[in-house]
Formats: sequence, structure tokens, C-alpha cells
Amino acid sequence: MTIYITGVGMTTFGELWGSSPTALATIAVKQALEDSEISASEVDGLVVGNMLSGMLGGQEHLGSFYRDALGLPTGISAVKTEGACASGGLAVHEGIIRVLSGMYETVIVLGVEKMTDHKPEDVAVALAGAGSDEERMSGATFPAVYAMLANAHMHQYKTTSQMMAAVAVKNHAHALHNPNAQFHTTLTIDQVLASSLIADPLHLLDCSPVTDGAAAIVISKHRLSAKRSVKVLASSVATDTIDVAGRVSLTSLAATVDAAKHAYSQAKCTPRDIQVAEVHDCFTIAEILAAEDLGWFDKGKAGPAILNGQLTLGTSKQLVVNPSGGLKGCGHPVGATGVKQVMEIVTQLRGEANKRQVPSARIGLTHNVGGSGGTAVVHILSL
Amino acid sequence: MTIYITGVGMTTFGELWGSSPTALATIAVKQALEDSEISASEVDGLVVGNMLSGMLGGQEHLGSFYRDALGLPTGISAVKTEGACASGGLAVHEGIIRVLSGMYETVIVLGVEKMTDHKPEDVAVALAGAGSDEERMSGATFPAVYAMLANAHMHQYKTTSQMMAAVAVKNHAHALHNPNAQFHTTLTIDQVLASSLIADPLHLLDCSPVTDGAAAIVISKHRLSAKRSVKVLASSVATDTIDVAGRVSLTSLAATVDAAKHAYSQAKCTPRDIQVAEVHDCFTIAEILAAEDLGWFDKGKAGPAILNGQLTLGTSKQLVVNPSGGLKGCGHPVGATGVKQVMEIVTQLRGEANKRQVPSARIGLTHNVGGSGGTAVVHILSL
Repeated sequence: MTIYITGVGMTTFGELWGSSPTALATIAVKQALEDSEISASEVDGLVVGNMLSGMLGGQEHLGSFYRDALGLPTGISAVKTEGACASGGLAVHEGIIRVLSGMYETVIVLGVEKMTDHKPEDVAVALAGAGSDEERMSGATFPAVYAMLANAHMHQYKTTSQMMAAVAVKNHAHALHNPNAQFHTTLTIDQVLASSLIADPLHLLDCSPVTDGAAAIVISKHRLSAKRSVKVLASSVATDTIDVAGRVSLTSLAATVDAAKHAYSQAKCTPRDIQVAEVHDCFTIAEILAAEDLGWFDKGKAGPAILNGQLTLGTSKQLVVNPSGGLKGCGHPVGATGVKQVMEIVTQLRGEANKRQVPSARIGLTHNVGGSGGTAVVHILSL
Repeated sequence: MTIYITGVGMTTFGELWGSSPTALATIAVKQALEDSEISASEVDGLVVGNMLSGMLGGQEHLGSFYRDALGLPTGISAVKTEGACASGGLAVHEGIIRVLSGMYETVIVLGVEKMTDHKPEDVAVALAGAGSDEERMSGATFPAVYAMLANAHMHQYKTTSQMMAAVAVKNHAHALHNPNAQFHTTLTIDQVLASSLIADPLHLLDCSPVTDGAAAIVISKHRLSAKRSVKVLASSVATDTIDVAGRVSLTSLAATVDAAKHAYSQAKCTPRDIQVAEVHDCFTIAEILAAEDLGWFDKGKAGPAILNGQLTLGTSKQLVVNPSGGLKGCGHPVGATGVKQVMEIVTQLRGEANKRQVPSARIGLTHNVGGSGGTAVVHILSL
């Protein structure tokens, strides 16, 4: 059965102190329904991707909460899906298997996170819920864990701080053309390298920000809007150990490799068939890992390629990565990220991305990671 | 496509201070795999039902966490599903749609909750995450909310405290025959009525306890064990407003009515076809509401019927409700409850329930509620 993403919507990503989570969700869902050319009454399911509402806001039961708050039809099915920073991608997967199961026809997938209303220490503690007890007890926050991966990659493949900085420079350049992005600031490699060291070798500007935002998509068995419905070619989830201590390798995320392998097989395509991708650049090293683990480069080759502009809009001839600005430039409201990635690819495949449009994008990929690689979710889409 | 529940497992439910969540999950999953006569290597997905691990334990990312901790095959898909006290039932639904989607063949659904390691005040605050901001701000904890429903039912239908107490008496009587139950204590109506008033008219012994425990089932497209695989006839989720303030009625849970209607339609059967059921008796009034909303009694008739022994093992001629002891007698580890309910019905349909066996049980039903009725999940199973 072919199933479709028929509509997309999102809020601006940023420090949205004046907006409640419900206000953000309402904007994203309203847009996605309008874009699908349907009313809420035609929806028979809701999946909410979120990580932190319990730990930061004391609110769980988010399926019921948002079904109610959004004014979706009384009685329909609703659920929350959680998988740390992959919560959004997992929610998209849940939406897809709902329609594939035959039990649902048209579902809304909402990703939403409100992070900036809280003290940074509280947010850091809550985010550490994505890792293991041992990581928490040893104080290994996210930047510390990704710094270990960066150091290993630098040691093994001669990846440099310049190469990592080039990821931030590229994604900020892309974000300039995304009106919904958190940052509209050009960066240079020197600026990244001159920013505070957070966890050696990662500088402040190697890190994605703390962000508020929501994104929503409509998934249906019906091609609701003939010209603009995008096909789902693959939806794949894989896991690895929740912490880095148990991993076979520190220079590759096995969950990404596994999810990608299944996804390419489902979609009957290869890495070379992808013209546009949104990958999980929570830290700059993460995009380098992703570009290798998703099969676009041999190990050790992604850093030089990115430094060389090979994944940059306007420079690349084959593949553009993170045209939205990625997590680094567009922002990273944890549960919303995986849904926003799908929205960006849908927008690109429709040719509606304006100044950040990747020319002749026919097949696109999204890649969303939970924690330091405990979960990875890959989707492949085509018009 | 017919799909099967091929194996079940659970821990003892109770105050299990000596066991970690992982230790509990390991017992339940090991049993479910052995019962299915398969090894872990034959599983391609894990769904974890849990509500409180973030708020009480600081641990999210539970799909990856338990895939890893349980030693399930590296790389397989894993996710956490949350819907307050319906998290377990929702996880079963996710397991079923996984197999129906054709993307998975055999999945484990694990429900797990560790509640007694924490201060009771902290548990009460965390559980209030199932309701609305307004309920939390007004101090309307779970007992307070269900007390409102009880008062409305007493007012409208002349339901009495004796009738509600009879639910507790019945379910404790059933729990006597369940070695995994939290309580093995006979109760009398007088004892229930003499226990402390928690939220008028609900006494302490009208309330389900705080519990640790885990339950697991295996769902497969394959009839892994020919004599003992149970068919899934229906899996249905419905929602209502997250808090009681917005409801049309205080004497009926619309989410239960809606989920039941869909489930009976999917299963092509009527309420009269059910011989055994596990329903969500978080408070005694909740079983009365359920027995009416699931179609077994007209409104106002369930209380007298239960007082009269019509749903009691050994007395009932048509239908036994909560042979496991229900949430009241067997215990209520939030995320595990919906999975345990399915395990009990599977055990009953197989004729393996020993002293609590419901004679000639052919079709069974489970009913799991989130919060005060914001979510309801109904499953119908047959041998």
C-alpha cells in the first residue's frame, strides 16, 4: 500500500517565551490540516512526539491532552511516543504504521517541545534522561558524550575542528533562507573556533541550541492533494546501547547504519539516489557521523567533503544536507525535530522551499537520533 | 490478517523494594518469550508502556533503554508509549498495529512501572500529570476526581457505598487465587466502609494501591505455539477531554463507550458474547462505570448487579469481571496494568487460570483507562 504525507506545518523555532505548548501545537496542526485541504473531522488518529513534558512540566497523558486542546474530533485515538531526541521521528513512524495497519486512514503527527521556560540546569538534567544511569552519575551530559565521539573520530580519521566547524557554517548559511529558523546569523569557521569550549573539542557553536517549537504532518492512505502529496518510500527504526560505553565503535552510530540499511532496502534505492536530506546534527560531529553512516561517504571522508562544500546548497552537485539549517541552525525542540525534518523534505520535494530549494530534488531522506545513538529513525520520501 | 498473542509473562505485583525496574522487566519478558517458545533473536520490535520513569526516575528513552537492558537483539526497533494509566493498553495497541502494518513479524510489548521507591507525595504529584493544569492547580488528585464521578453516579442512579464496596470485596476474593496479586486478603463490605475516607465517598479500600511490577506479551503474525496462541479480534483506542470539567456526563466515560463500540464492531460481536473481562477498577466506582459503559448493564444497573454477585467467579453464570483481582486486588503498576490485563485474558482463554479459571471462557475483553477517562483502550481476544 502506498501512503502519503499530505500536509505539513510548523511554528517558528526559537525562544518562544510568549507562547504555550498548546499555542505552538495549534499553529503547526492548523497549517498541516489546511495544507492537506482537509478539516479536523477527517482525522482518525493523533500521535504526539515529545520527550520532556513530564520532567519539565509535570504533564503526561499528552495524546489525550493535545487531542482535547487542539479541538480534534472527540473520541479519536491519541497517544504519545517518546524516544528522547528521536521522539519526533518515532512519532512519524507510529503514524505511518497506523495507516499501513489498515486501522487508520488519516492521522496527524505532532512533534512539540517547550524547553526555554526552564532553568538551563533543569533542562540539562532532563535531557540526561536520554542516557544511562552511569552517564548521569559520571556527569556525562550530551556535549561530553558527543565530545568523546568527536575525539575518537579525530584520532582515527584525522577529522579536524575546522571540518566540524564547517558543518555549523553550512547549516547557519542554509538557515538564513528559512524564515522558521531560530538563527539568521552567518558564521565563519574562525567564529566557531573562537567560541567558548564546552566539552573539548566541541565549542559552543558546535552545539545545537535549546529551542521551543512544534511541527505537524498529516499522513493518509488518500492522496488528499493530488499535486502535493508526498509518498513514503521507507520508515525504519533501529537501536543501539543507550550509552556509549557499550558500543563496538565510537566513530559510527550503529543504530544509524542499521536504520539506513533497512530504509534503503524498503525504498529499493541506494545512498546515491538521495538529493536532499535532513540529518541529526545535534553537534557538528553528529552530521559528519551521519553523512558517513548513511552511506554517502566512506569513514573519514565526510569531514573533508563538508569543508569542501560538497553538502552545501549552491555548491553541491549531488546532495544537499540540512537545507532547513538542521538542528544547529533551525533549532532543536527535541520532540519536534523529527517531524520538522519530514516537513522540510516534503517542502523540498514539492519545490516549495524558495531560496533554500535544492534543485531537482526527487528523493529525500530524514535521519533523527535519540540520545547519543541509542535510537535512530530514517525516512525516505519521494514526490 | 489474523494476528496472535503467543506468549505472556509477569512479575508478582507489589511493593518490590528489592527489585530494579530492569530486574522486573527481565522476569516478565523472559517468561513471555519462553511461553511463546521462541528465543529473543526472533523478535523484531519492542514497545514499552510506561508513565512515570521520567518524572520519578529521570530516565526517558525507555525503548532503547530496555532493548539494551533486556539483551534483545542489537539494532531492532524500540519505542516507549505513554498515555498515563492507559500506557500499557496503548503499548499493546502499538504492538498490534506494528504486526498488522506488515513492517514487523513478532514484537514484545512490555509494561513496567516502579512506584514504591518514591515518597508518596512525589508519586501523587507525578500521577497528577495524567490530568489537566486546572485539576493540578485545584488539588484535584485522582481520588478527588473519581469521588466526583462517584457522587454524580450515586445522585443520578442511587448507587450506594455498599455497591462500590462490593467491587473491592469481589476483586480481593478473586485475587486470593492469583499468586501474582499484591493482596491476598479477604475483605468484607463492612471493612471497606470502615476504612478511612480518602475523598468522600471513596474509602481507602475503594482505591487501587501503588504498585511495582512488569508484564509482557509477545504479538506475532505467526501462531508460534499451536495450542496456546490467542487471536486478537479487536484493538481500539478512544479519547475524551483530559479533565472531567469538560465532559458531557460525569456518570459515563465517553472514551470507554467509543472504544468499546469500535472494538465490538471490529470483533463482530456484542457485549453478551464476552465471558471474561479485565476492566480498569482504579477506584471501585470505575468498575461500575466500566460495566455499564462496556454495554453489560444499563446505566445504574451495574452497582446492584455487582452487589448481587453477578460478576463474581463461582456465582456469575454469564460474565466474570476482573478474575485477576483487577487493579484493586492484583495491584496497579501504572504502565504494566494494560499489559497484565491482556495476560490474564490470554491465561483464561487458554484454560490455564487454575483456581480463578472462568469456566468456558471463549471470548475475553480488556479495558484500560488513562487518567479520569481521557483515554480508553479496549481489546477483544479469543482462542
